[in-house]
Amino acid sequence: MTAGVRTGRDTSLQGLFAPKSIALVGATDKSGWSLSTYQNLLTQGFTGSVHLVNPRSPEVHGQKACKSLTDIGEPVDLAFVMVPTPAVLDVLREGARLGIRNYVILTAGFGETGPEGRRREEELHAFVREQGLNVLGPNGNGYVNAAASITPYGLAITQPPLAGPVSVVLQSGALASAVLTFMHARNVGLALLTSMGNEMSLSVTDVIDHLVDDPATEVIALFLETVRHPDEFARVARRAAEAGKPIVALKIGASRLASRTAQAHTGALVGDDRVVDAAFRQLGVIRAHSLEELVLTAGLLARTGPLPGGRIGVVTPSGGACEIIADRAEQEGLEIPPFAPETTARLKEAVPDFATVQNPLDVTGYVLVDRTLLPRALDTVAADPGIDAVLALVDLPRVPPADPEAARAYFGAFAEAIRRTDKPVVVSGNVLTDVTETGRGLQAETGFPHVAGGIDHTMKALGAAVRWSRSLPDVLRTQPPAPAPAAVTTGQSGEVWTEHRAARLLADHGVPVVPSTLTADEDEAVAAAERVGYPVVLKAAAEGLQHKSDIGGVRLDLDGPDAVRDAFREVRDTLRHHGHGAAAPVLVQPQRSGGTELLVGIVRDPTWGLTLAVALGGIWVEILADSALRLLPVTPADVRSALGELRGARLLDGARGTEPADLDAVAEAVVGIGELARSLGPRLESLEVNPLLVRGSRVEALDALVTWA
Amino acid sequence: MTAGVRTGRDTSLQGLFAPKSIALVGATDKSGWSLSTYQNLLTQGFTGSVHLVNPRSPEVHGQKACKSLTDIGEPVDLAFVMVPTPAVLDVLREGARLGIRNYVILTAGFGETGPEGRRREEELHAFVREQGLNVLGPNGNGYVNAAASITPYGLAITQPPLAGPVSVVLQSGALASAVLTFMHARNVGLALLTSMGNEMSLSVTDVIDHLVDDPATEVIALFLETVRHPDEFARVARRAAEAGKPIVALKIGASRLASRTAQAHTGALVGDDRVVDAAFRQLGVIRAHSLEELVLTAGLLARTGPLPGGRIGVVTPSGGACEIIADRAEQEGLEIPPFAPETTARLKEAVPDFATVQNPLDVTGYVLVDRTLLPRALDTVAADPGIDAVLALVDLPRVPPADPEAARAYFGAFAEAIRRTDKPVVVSGNVLTDVTETGRGLQAETGFPHVAGGIDHTMKALGAAVRWSRSLPDVLRTQPPAPAPAAVTTGQSGEVWTEHRAARLLADHGVPVVPSTLTADEDEAVAAAERVGYPVVLKAAAEGLQHKSDIGGVRLDLDGPDAVRDAFREVRDTLRHHGHGAAAPVLVQPQRSGGTELLVGIVRDPTWGLTLAVALGGIWVEILADSALRLLPVTPADVRSALGELRGARLLDGARGTEPADLDAVAEAVVGIGELARSLGPRLESLEVNPLLVRGSRVEALDALVTWA
Repeated sequence: MTAGVRTGRDTSLQGLFAPKSIALVGATDKSGWSLSTYQNLLTQGFTGSVHLVNPRSPEVHGQKACKSLTDIGEPVDLAFVMVPTPAVLDVLREGARLGIRNYVILTAGFGETGPEGRRREEELHAFVREQGLNVLGPNGNGYVNAAASITPYGLAITQPPLAGPVSVVLQSGALASAVLTFMHARNVGLALLTSMGNEMSLSVTDVIDHLVDDPATEVIALFLETVRHPDEFARVARRAAEAGKPIVALKIGASRLASRTAQAHTGALVGDDRVVDAAFRQLGVIRAHSLEELVLTAGLLARTGPLPGGRIGVVTPSGGACEIIADRAEQEGLEIPPFAPETTARLKEAVPDFATVQNPLDVTGYVLVDRTLLPRALDTVAADPGIDAVLALVDLPRVPPADPEAARAYFGAFAEAIRRTDKPVVVSGNVLTDVTETGRGLQAETGFPHVAGGIDHTMKALGAAVRWSRSLPDVLRTQPPAPAPAAVTTGQSGEVWTEHRAARLLADHGVPVVPSTLTADEDEAVAAAERVGYPVVLKAAAEGLQHKSDIGGVRLDLDGPDAVRDAFREVRDTLRHHGHGAAAPVLVQPQRSGGTELLVGIVRDPTWGLTLAVALGGIWVEILADSALRLLPVTPADVRSALGELRGARLLDGARGTEPADLDAVAEAVVGIGELARSLGPRLESLEVNPLLVRGSRVEALDALVTWA
Repeated sequence: MTAGVRTGRDTSLQGLFAPKSIALVGATDKSGWSLSTYQNLLTQGFTGSVHLVNPRSPEVHGQKACKSLTDIGEPVDLAFVMVPTPAVLDVLREGARLGIRNYVILTAGFGETGPEGRRREEELHAFVREQGLNVLGPNGNGYVNAAASITPYGLAITQPPLAGPVSVVLQSGALASAVLTFMHARNVGLALLTSMGNEMSLSVTDVIDHLVDDPATEVIALFLETVRHPDEFARVARRAAEAGKPIVALKIGASRLASRTAQAHTGALVGDDRVVDAAFRQLGVIRAHSLEELVLTAGLLARTGPLPGGRIGVVTPSGGACEIIADRAEQEGLEIPPFAPETTARLKEAVPDFATVQNPLDVTGYVLVDRTLLPRALDTVAADPGIDAVLALVDLPRVPPADPEAARAYFGAFAEAIRRTDKPVVVSGNVLTDVTETGRGLQAETGFPHVAGGIDHTMKALGAAVRWSRSLPDVLRTQPPAPAPAAVTTGQSGEVWTEHRAARLLADHGVPVVPSTLTADEDEAVAAAERVGYPVVLKAAAEGLQHKSDIGGVRLDLDGPDAVRDAFREVRDTLRHHGHGAAAPVLVQPQRSGGTELLVGIVRDPTWGLTLAVALGGIWVEILADSALRLLPVTPADVRSALGELRGARLLDGARGTEPADLDAVAEAVVGIGELARSLGPRLESLEVNPLLVRGSRVEALDALVTWA
């Protein structure tokens, strides 16, 4: 699907997600999906009209049914299609004739089933494109618009979703129910949930686009099996960042096994998981690692919005909890700074003598005696000038309290204290349990805020929220990538460009390359060596030769004319021995010593396109697989941040006696390599500079390899 | 506290934890703790007698009170003491006179408050020791014996704990309530929960000892701020392993900040967190990282016991869930192997055509139509010969189902299928929510098993359970450490033994050391060099000289007599320049080249004692801090497993052209270094061999350093 195709349809999804009349086409008493959809609409507060369409039964689900869409005789905003697979296209044809623009197709049996299904889906898609229809599905369960109480959704909703600021987009049918359940259990309010199905026409990015403009949505949560339209994804992620709406995503497929499962399941190619990490970070998308984390991070951000910083003041009634929080804060990169002297002094007056005044603060079990203790401590801690946000540990009651009036007074006063502060206050329970009806009621009565989770999940969500808040300026500064430069050159299909040809390509495009001469005989080799100065290196330069060190095609430490002549003959012999021509050229280069070897690799990820990997040479890549990834294009700042992620980063600063690297010079060279790769056209498979030798401000590519698909 | 002291008390804790009569001493209407304790006993099913003791009020909590313990006039098995701090000792004196052996002391104001409190606690402790009493506390909340419905516990129990196989021991008062809440929410049954308080007399290890013998306890869960008696802890951990009872522990204090908090809080020293990891692994204690993980891992193990292996067959109704499970399995080191051909064939008949038959298995949303699908798939997968355990994804209903009879039939049939298999079956929900009364009821009615958690926590718990099961044979094979060898030698306080003296110590005790001669003049040096062969190394050997390379005290690559003489003079000059005597000796050693450098360090951890660290030299320690720890003593197998944990382990196998190391020879040398350290007596602070050079089967200490406290 291309952007051009999309312009054909009505670009607003308002009619799809906020219809005033809905037709359930293929409604039948025999189907649980039909019954659930109908009951959901009835019981979850839909105030528009619901039409049931069944050509054979005059009555379905106890209501009069029409024979066809035409038979309804009234305008229909949304057709929810549950007819058998072969009948779907006819329903859309009829609907389009009647001017119906919006469809949910629950029916399965399309692209997900194999070649025949794919053909059927393509046919359907062609019609949808031609008519510019909005279609969610096929093979999806519909959606739940909790903000507007519109629930054309094919699975039974057993607990009414709570309206609120979090919207959810899922590439999974079954997990939608799990997410709804968990949001309900944790009192996280829902705006819109969509179950995407096969994404034949409308895709995740279209829905995100809609949600960025949706006033009911403050945070967007995604469950992704695959990112189908990476450019679109980048565009909508940028829009969301500009709107200050965080996107939290659970992207599965990290394991090779999952990758296999996803292929079997959706026919979508799942790329390397670390590229996903890199892409999300560059796009300001928060990556969650469990369904719980997805919902709880979204819930926390819906309460706090972007946070001003990571210095957290912690107020609890438990020493044990303080210690868990301190451990988790360190893991999440959150700071729990000492209190300012005036804060400490004020707290000493507020808490019992036997309490230790420090951050994290344990006001002690004396909270059971003095119910004002925690809110008062919160006031004081929030006023500390060195604190960006407050974390307060409070469990909502789970069963009706013995003294409901006292509980209301307590939580009311606490809520009041939280409202008084101008700092964000995150409330956490100790453990992750449901918010029960008792707790929920108390929150409603007193305005006590959202409880983020148990300690563990709250800390994880808070860490993610702080990191996202910090990254936001960078994400906003990043401009949409300039189009790739025009292709300057390209290789033949399957070709491999080695040393000299690859080096020339680099040099021609401004990437610094070690001086290097192709020589045809011993005299030329000696002359070249004299020019660059001894010691020199000789390398076999036969076209298409890889792994030349392994076959003895590289000679080092040549410190005079005789050594060069001997080496030249040996390299030639080696080349002949491996079937290369008697006249294969030999490269002469000055031998560099010292410095730090970098590997700069660019590969084409099947989803995200050209991706840069930087690494230190030697054991760092070979044994530790220590590399950092960035999508192209990159800025010098991107390269520097990538280098900073390497576990061996300190070597570039001069640890262990290496000369400190001029990181600006390195970044400039790496950006140049990236821009060159972007200019090499769609046939470029990979471009690897290994090593890029860095010694102080001298940065030089010593060897390179270009492969063409 | 020493083992000797403990023999004084009645070693059975039966009377403490299963009393038939309880006196609440200091009971008063003015105290919430008093009221809670009394109400807990009344409402949670205690069938023995409860006596209230208050010298001034004839009636407390609406019941007749006695003036004193003596006044009760009946035998009392347990006195629960809540009197003011200064009165505690008198209560115990009176009780001891009356023959009362068991006490819970809730009263605070002892060791946790400072020097005066510590003095008071010491006085109390002396009396307890003298009388051989069983005392839990002071400053603890008591215990909940859910197995026997005995709940002398100072905080309100709002939800009756469910009796079951998990016992919990906590070094935290406030978190006990959180654990009780979470166990209730997740339907994890409790045997005994104890809130330890200050552990003046009875400590965590005493309670574990009791639980190993307690027939109601199958799994032991711990919340630890500190391990007070590491030897005892090792002993009871070994007993638990022998009894097949897993211990799961949440040990906090990983962060330096937490370490500070814990010191302020308990006065206990918190050691380095990685030593805790090493100790737990050697002792077969499972380390949890959150309260949720603690309870859910214990809950899962209570259901499965030790698992036969890590090959998991997965049965779900959701492709999305399969992919999350596959991702998480890989992270946890669990295997999800392909099904055997006969399994695949049988499954193809069972599941709908559009389902993809593979492990993890998604039987599809068709479960809503055919309710036998999941149980039938479970039968087949469990029969697969390549599967050790089955993971089934099933959510219990949260609200009363529309058709209760159908739900009972479904879960009943499913439970029956699970009972039929001879493989362990772990059931997981999608997300971590409470088990509601509906789900709980259905489980009770149908025998449907424990649901371990949401996917994320279940995978974490399953991973931990499999790793523990695998480690069990090793843990059981490990004998209690032999007593340390008699001290062979010892240094002066604060002394540092460097090169020659340290090397001689190693050599004298059978650790291979590079040949090395102390020389006093140039001639001796040359003679020594001729003996070992060129090239040689010269090293300054002045007593107490550290970092000798930094001051030019090491000369390498000396390839003849002249070079040796020059170097000798230079080293002497350097020594003189740094204030060492004109006659300071100089070491001559053969220069080794090639091979792999190891660092073998032994330090004394404040809690766990002598701890071995092994590491590779160079960047591995300096930049990556890549080391593996083990408590001493170690076996050759321990050393090999530690080396295997190093990120650079492959270097020892010959990666990157290094000569493969003879790991048996390395292990022998490292065990020898460890045994030497153990024989050096309590003043040894650290012993470091750096490097231990390994080249094939030649293993040699090139340098060593011994420091004395």
